Amino acid sequence: MSKTNKDARPTPRLPRGLRDIEAAELRQQQAMLVKIREVYERYGFEPLETPAFEYTDALGKFLPDQDRPNEGVFSLQDEDEQWMSLRYDLTAPLARYVAQNYQFLPKPFRRYAVGPVWRNEKPGPGRFRQFMQFDADTVGAESVAADAEMCMLAADTLEALGIKRGDYVIKVNNRKLLDGVLWSLGLDYTDAARHAAIFRALDKFDRLGMDGVKLLLGKGRKDESGDFTPGAELTAKQIESVTVFMLSWDDIRANTIKRLEGFFSNDNEVGQQGLEELRTIDALLAQAGYEHDRIVFDGTVVRGLDYYTGPVFETDLTMTILDDEGRPVRFGSVGSGGRYDGLVARFTGQKVPATGFSIGVSRLQAALAALHKDKAPVAEGPVIVTVMEKERIADYQKLVQALRAANIRAELYLGNPKKFGKQLEYADKRGSPCVVIQGSDERAKGEVTLKDLVEGAKAAAAIKDNREWKEQRPAQVSVKEADLVAEVKKILARHAG
Amino acid sequence: MSKTNKDARPTPRLPRGLRDIEAAELRQQQAMLVKIREVYERYGFEPLETPAFEYTDALGKFLPDQDRPNEGVFSLQDEDEQWMSLRYDLTAPLARYVAQNYQFLPKPFRRYAVGPVWRNEKPGPGRFRQFMQFDADTVGAESVAADAEMCMLAADTLEALGIKRGDYVIKVNNRKLLDGVLWSLGLDYTDAARHAAIFRALDKFDRLGMDGVKLLLGKGRKDESGDFTPGAELTAKQIESVTVFMLSWDDIRANTIKRLEGFFSNDNEVGQQGLEELRTIDALLAQAGYEHDRIVFDGTVVRGLDYYTGPVFETDLTMTILDDEGRPVRFGSVGSGGRYDGLVARFTGQKVPATGFSIGVSRLQAALAALHKDKAPVAEGPVIVTVMEKERIADYQKLVQALRAANIRAELYLGNPKKFGKQLEYADKRGSPCVVIQGSDERAKGEVTLKDLVEGAKAAAAIKDNREWKEQRPAQVSVKEADLVAEVKKILARHAG
Repeated sequence: MSKTNKDARPTPRLPRGLRDIEAAELRQQQAMLVKIREVYERYGFEPLETPAFEYTDALGKFLPDQDRPNEGVFSLQDEDEQWMSLRYDLTAPLARYVAQNYQFLPKPFRRYAVGPVWRNEKPGPGRFRQFMQFDADTVGAESVAADAEMCMLAADTLEALGIKRGDYVIKVNNRKLLDGVLWSLGLDYTDAARHAAIFRALDKFDRLGMDGVKLLLGKGRKDESGDFTPGAELTAKQIESVTVFMLSWDDIRANTIKRLEGFFSNDNEVGQQGLEELRTIDALLAQAGYEHDRIVFDGTVVRGLDYYTGPVFETDLTMTILDDEGRPVRFGSVGSGGRYDGLVARFTGQKVPATGFSIGVSRLQAALAALHKDKAPVAEGPVIVTVMEKERIADYQKLVQALRAANIRAELYLGNPKKFGKQLEYADKRGSPCVVIQGSDERAKGEVTLKDLVEGAKAAAAIKDNREWKEQRPAQVSVKEADLVAEVKKILARHAG
Repeated sequence: MSKTNKDARPTPRLPRGLRDIEAAELRQQQAMLVKIREVYERYGFEPLETPAFEYTDALGKFLPDQDRPNEGVFSLQDEDEQWMSLRYDLTAPLARYVAQNYQFLPKPFRRYAVGPVWRNEKPGPGRFRQFMQFDADTVGAESVAADAEMCMLAADTLEALGIKRGDYVIKVNNRKLLDGVLWSLGLDYTDAARHAAIFRALDKFDRLGMDGVKLLLGKGRKDESGDFTPGAELTAKQIESVTVFMLSWDDIRANTIKRLEGFFSNDNEVGQQGLEELRTIDALLAQAGYEHDRIVFDGTVVRGLDYYTGPVFETDLTMTILDDEGRPVRFGSVGSGGRYDGLVARFTGQKVPATGFSIGVSRLQAALAALHKDKAPVAEGPVIVTVMEKERIADYQKLVQALRAANIRAELYLGNPKKFGKQLEYADKRGSPCVVIQGSDERAKGEVTLKDLVEGAKAAAAIKDNREWKEQRPAQVSVKEADLVAEVKKILARHAG
């Protein structure tokens, strides 16, 4: 091959922020998706799949305002010059679908969706440009019963995935309560920048505590490194009022309600509305048996409030998980949602109330993997039928098919069979529970040899030298060829995870 | 809302060639994928997922030779100006993955993959720009045992999906046999256009018969509409030779081998090699019990021969399915594959033998749906708990959660409960097996009313008028609230699909 040709060879690599997912992780993911789907189905949601692309204007939020659509999404032009984008979440395509098919849909329309979404953002550790979401949404239901149900769904889903009660919490807030606070402060309703600064300050409560939040509500805050974050410029009295609001939130939902009743004046319409919704949600949850060991009200849940219009919720893992160096890791939010009444109206002009919940599958899976990392891995690989006599592969393939017909995961060694050691190495690398061997000796006797790789590994660890190993041939047994399936089943049963 | 704003509203629509997949079809697809995955796993393949994007040069075939990469794929530029493309199949990303991770992989490397692929092509009826494939590949196995296994995998997969033996056939050919024919004709080995014309002619055998193929091998062919297709310009003697080759293929594999042994001279190296591979494949299949009722040799399988280097196979559905107008529909190929030894070499310069099989999931699903369209649809919807007294939704939600806790698909009616008729309409539209009703009367007695919608529909069909219906209230029963779960289970058992 000439030098020019060699230079022309592409380098096998992936664009940054994209990754391959290999067998062990994919199997876990598959098992997770099955369990999540079961819960969503039990709640009555129906599956829907929309394509990866949408017209950019139909996805909204990222409208083409220049030559190219905004950053944040992957976009390209179709042959007719129209801009298309890859979906950045599963909600925007749902809004398009509902607007397009409104007259034919049952109302409310309840659907779940699972699949990859794409964000054209700067990747970082654990942050990818393609990741998976699993959403449930109820469209066309004004009742906060639909929101309360989302919280129950979140709790049931986490428990179905093996996360124990007490190891997670669903936190509920309401956009209307925060609007009520802004109203009570006498702030200009149209001052979006000020509102955003206040929300950002409240979002820091977990990390900075009330004192840090107060600084951010006021003049601003200088952190340890000397960096200064400008504040929301509230007056001392306004800050005091926000403090009272923030201290109203209690682990016991009824206590929170009582304190907020004291906080909001009777003429604070939006605050009173938010409060009424809290009361209804509390009653629904309590009656269905979802107490504060699972679902609490929490005023610090303010993310996405430019988008949500009513109840908002966040699912946090609270248990402490140790990383490989034994340091505690908090995984935090693995799912979130809330009420968004504006999405379908973008198309139709008609307000269609909707609420939804979205699980970040990859993030939740990382948490589950860390949680279960001590579990012994199971030998999940196939039984390998080795090739001792190359000209007899048809006979070996027959053994393989007999195993497969008995629903046993099995395969013929398909590499170059010359070196037998390579075949055992291969079986090892594949995590095979056992290999099947039939050389000329065994063939003459109508037998096959089964080598239990799991037992063998244990025995090898206990045996001192090679000679001893050769004499004992641990975990190896010869059986009649007719008994192959039954004997392999015995070995598999021994090591069943 | 001002007129300007109204005009700015986007139209809810999808780009052409893309579609939404709704619940019934998605459920079928899900069930299919589970079954296919079971078979692929049983064969020892491991799952792998690669991202939707690859660098365009890594995908190959479609290299950026102008400002934009070629048509046929969806491409866009990353922030660093590098071209990326959405995968157009699952094999090209596999080649990139293997080249990138070669030293760490078990050899052979056996993986399966399932997911959407994208083609930027002209859509048509049943042809979409996003569709799903389910592939299995063995990389690093030179032995044709790997190819024979792909044929068995194809057969086992179709039968696992409920397609009866005799209703499908796996057709096997070999690129080397066709190269042997070209050699025997004394054709210039580098005359790719001529070869392509010959392959195209053979591909028409099913439709045009030998006479049509002969015309296409010679001067060309005028069809009924008067359109002329230029031919491969072979001489009469050459055409005669190709005819003998094409007539060598028989339903019985051994017959085909015998006839081809007569066709290829001993000095026809590539032809003899192809023949030897046919013999080995036949022996492997026969020994494992896969006879010509499942797998045949067929010289008309020539699609993709510019890509494949050895055995090629195609999975055809042969049963006749009637469409809605009672006309027979042939679905033809629902999967194909073959040996491709050049893909990894694109990156590494090193030849890595590989073979694979790919199922067109959407196409196969369409066939299965047509095949089973007479099956009665099952009432798969959730049990609907209706809302009679709006202020008691917490009580109704409690009933819902009790059903869900018993693993019964259930939901609270979340729309506006004012009109009870709307609630029943909703239950009907959702395909609910039954609804739960508790008005003040029932509540006073500690009861709930269950309305069996499946029975009810049958009864309603038999009842003459509204009065009679009201008097009989068919398929309606009142039970103690404590017996709710048990009684609902009885109804579900009655209608279990």
